Amino acid sequence: MTESASPSADQLFSARVSIEQVEEGTELAPKFDDKGFIPCVTTDHASGELLMVAVMNREALEKTIATGEAHYYSRSRQCLWHKGATSGLVQKVVEMRIDDDQDCVWLRVEVAGGASCHVGYRSCFYRKVPVGDQRAAGTALEFLETEKAFDPKAVYGDAPNPTQL
Amino acid sequence: MTESASPSADQLFSARVSIEQVEEGTELAPKFDDKGFIPCVTTDHASGELLMVAVMNREALEKTIATGEAHYYSRSRQCLWHKGATSGLVQKVVEMRIDDDQDCVWLRVEVAGGASCHVGYRSCFYRKVPVGDQRAAGTALEFLETEKAFDPKAVYGDAPNPTQL
Repeated sequence: MTESASPSADQLFSARVSIEQVEEGTELAPKFDDKGFIPCVTTDHASGELLMVAVMNREALEKTIATGEAHYYSRSRQCLWHKGATSGLVQKVVEMRIDDDQDCVWLRVEVAGGASCHVGYRSCFYRKVPVGDQRAAGTALEFLETEKAFDPKAVYGDAPNPTQL
Repeated sequence: MTESASPSADQLFSARVSIEQVEEGTELAPKFDDKGFIPCVTTDHASGELLMVAVMNREALEKTIATGEAHYYSRSRQCLWHKGATSGLVQKVVEMRIDDDQDCVWLRVEVAGGASCHVGYRSCFYRKVPVGDQRAAGTALEFLETEKAFDPKAVYGDAPNPTQL
């Protein structure tokens, strides 16, 4: 496929001209922040579980729409990130939604292999924080997943851990 | 209640000392960005539907944990935001989770009144973006909610719309 055969961002995205257009209209007019990013929330389409939260730049949003597979922008590696390209755990987009002011994307995905977290868990959100009355039983984080879905060393090898302190 | 009877941020939050502690430990050691914010994803605890994405500062996270009701930081109004204080649509936290590197919070909530979006819809994410093969049927956004859950003018009156172009 030649470069010109891909849809361009100009074709996919409309300019933002009014609050009514953005909130009540049918044009995709996403807002990218001052760094060129739009946040993206990704959930499991079947369980509703929150898998991950990341950002997209224009190219990532364009490629996700064009291919139906989740693409993000990796801030640690500073490049387009086709999720699953390394691990094989590609996210197939069952449904994409955009919010009222079009500054946030929601992907409902089907994950090959069932795991999305670089630590090896199914979801990045594998620990519970006790709140309100729950705190009577203690304030320590509670693990909701007790077994990893895959071995991160076997999948990622010696690649640097993206977590930053 | 005196000010000193409230739990302080120092008591609730641990310092971030190692990747192992942050990813595999049971201490709450949240990471706030350079503006002092941590993003928060809020879903309906029963349906799994994504309701909204916002940010918390230290005080908002502290108050959410202490009270079991969702508090955010309003970037448009630049103040602590007890969700529902104006509209009555308080979000009761059924479960709070934190992600692997502890730079994102997930709230599973029960919403009084059933709506969370300032435009009047149940969810802020009331429109679908066609992706991949779905685009053969057209590229326009598709409304997934056809009726508003409440009348924003009746609830918010003449308060300024928070959406920015």
